[in-house]
Amino acid sequence: MDKKPIGIFDSGVGGLTVFKEIRKRFPFEDIIYFGDTARVPYGPKSRNTVIDYSIQNARFLIQQGAKIIVIACNTSSATALIDLQKLLPVPVLGVIEPGALSAVKSSGNKHIGVIGTEGTIRSQAYSTAISKLDDSCIIFSKPCPLFVPLAEEGWEDHEVTQLTIKEYLTSLLHKDIDTLVLGCTHYPILKTSIQKFVGSKITLVDSAQAVTDKLDEILPNRETKEIGKDYFYVSDNEVKFKQIASKILDMEIDKLIKVKLGEGWFLK
Amino acid sequence: MDKKPIGIFDSGVGGLTVFKEIRKRFPFEDIIYFGDTARVPYGPKSRNTVIDYSIQNARFLIQQGAKIIVIACNTSSATALIDLQKLLPVPVLGVIEPGALSAVKSSGNKHIGVIGTEGTIRSQAYSTAISKLDDSCIIFSKPCPLFVPLAEEGWEDHEVTQLTIKEYLTSLLHKDIDTLVLGCTHYPILKTSIQKFVGSKITLVDSAQAVTDKLDEILPNRETKEIGKDYFYVSDNEVKFKQIASKILDMEIDKLIKVKLGEGWFLK
Repeated sequence: MDKKPIGIFDSGVGGLTVFKEIRKRFPFEDIIYFGDTARVPYGPKSRNTVIDYSIQNARFLIQQGAKIIVIACNTSSATALIDLQKLLPVPVLGVIEPGALSAVKSSGNKHIGVIGTEGTIRSQAYSTAISKLDDSCIIFSKPCPLFVPLAEEGWEDHEVTQLTIKEYLTSLLHKDIDTLVLGCTHYPILKTSIQKFVGSKITLVDSAQAVTDKLDEILPNRETKEIGKDYFYVSDNEVKFKQIASKILDMEIDKLIKVKLGEGWFLK
Repeated sequence: MDKKPIGIFDSGVGGLTVFKEIRKRFPFEDIIYFGDTARVPYGPKSRNTVIDYSIQNARFLIQQGAKIIVIACNTSSATALIDLQKLLPVPVLGVIEPGALSAVKSSGNKHIGVIGTEGTIRSQAYSTAISKLDDSCIIFSKPCPLFVPLAEEGWEDHEVTQLTIKEYLTSLLHKDIDTLVLGCTHYPILKTSIQKFVGSKITLVDSAQAVTDKLDEILPNRETKEIGKDYFYVSDNEVKFKQIASKILDMEIDKLIKVKLGEGWFLK
């Protein structure tokens, strides 16, 4: 049984929804979480930048001993998964394919909506993954860039959030979708408001559960006398991270370490 | 007459409002602009991180020959000005003190509102600067974190923006302010909607003009036969930068160079 930890990274706090699900399902594993809070958000950034950042984050987790990497960030999964799988000496899981599988299983009429950041939607990663599983599916995508700052502002059910949800999602409702993929780890924070707007006939797919199912397939579930340890690393804002984390995880974080990146711009 | 360029940096595109004003007032100067589009926004980031980023940005401008540095970013001005002035071999101007001076000159009843990012408001930089100029002023501050993503989404006069403005600014209106400092370079993009909500009796102070007045005091205005050249550098997203820049500046950007930062996280 491999005592090395599971490594998870995200652009910030959103990936804690993935951490929470993995911790629940793998109580005896050690888990290292890295949140790149100094460079959040990844959504509006270019492909090459997201790949660079993802490589830096994953390498850091491997330096800390990770035996497997889970990319909790949808933008990063959509953009950097293949590069990481090629480059790294350990298995790498993204959230896109498990989310796509979950959506295909859930949909009856094969009309599936996907929402995410600009980067995730631009990459067409969900459309590609869903079509590979079932090419009869019709996919309707929509970037929702304001959902991340609204979730971070704590306006989960504010009038402004409801109006923004209406603005972004009305066009999807006209497409007769029966399943909507929440293609960003921040979006489950707005889940109640989104469900209220789209109605109970539309199933919301949350990738945290989907990726944990996938992890379950490849990682034999350890059972030891010792409960797994948690290690949290961030690149900025320890205090704010602890606050939001205690809200998402329903527990206090004792150990939180801040890491730093090397300095200096250079012309490419 | 010193032929070296004026250096301006910002966390992204917002500082182009400062670039535009300086270009108009100094037609014969060369200007280098650096937008840290890979790490925008600075507003929610911690003090130390904003200082680190600001030093990296300013050093890059000096490497490119800048004879003076203008910090267009309010968060960075509020946090890193003194460190930059200590560290760097050239004069450094921030937007806070000029904006504060402008506000004090404008206010009749000495009730001044200040809006900005979380970082700028937390630093109390405007309050300190205004009180130093006139300690009879009463200052009311309010962080407005959603204004930056709303401006970047292009929703300048959208219903969601109007509702967000109402949510953030209603409490300030009850304070009988006659002057409101737009303490973030992005906010002038929402100026029309903000003015509409607060009414014509409240004067909006835009720091781009104020910092250019200050620059005018310390830099002798060159007059040569040759019109000044513009140099633009960004750390990400050249295409999006060009699009927004052409809208803000009313001109096309020909030369835009992307620069890159060194790699690798380390434990501090």
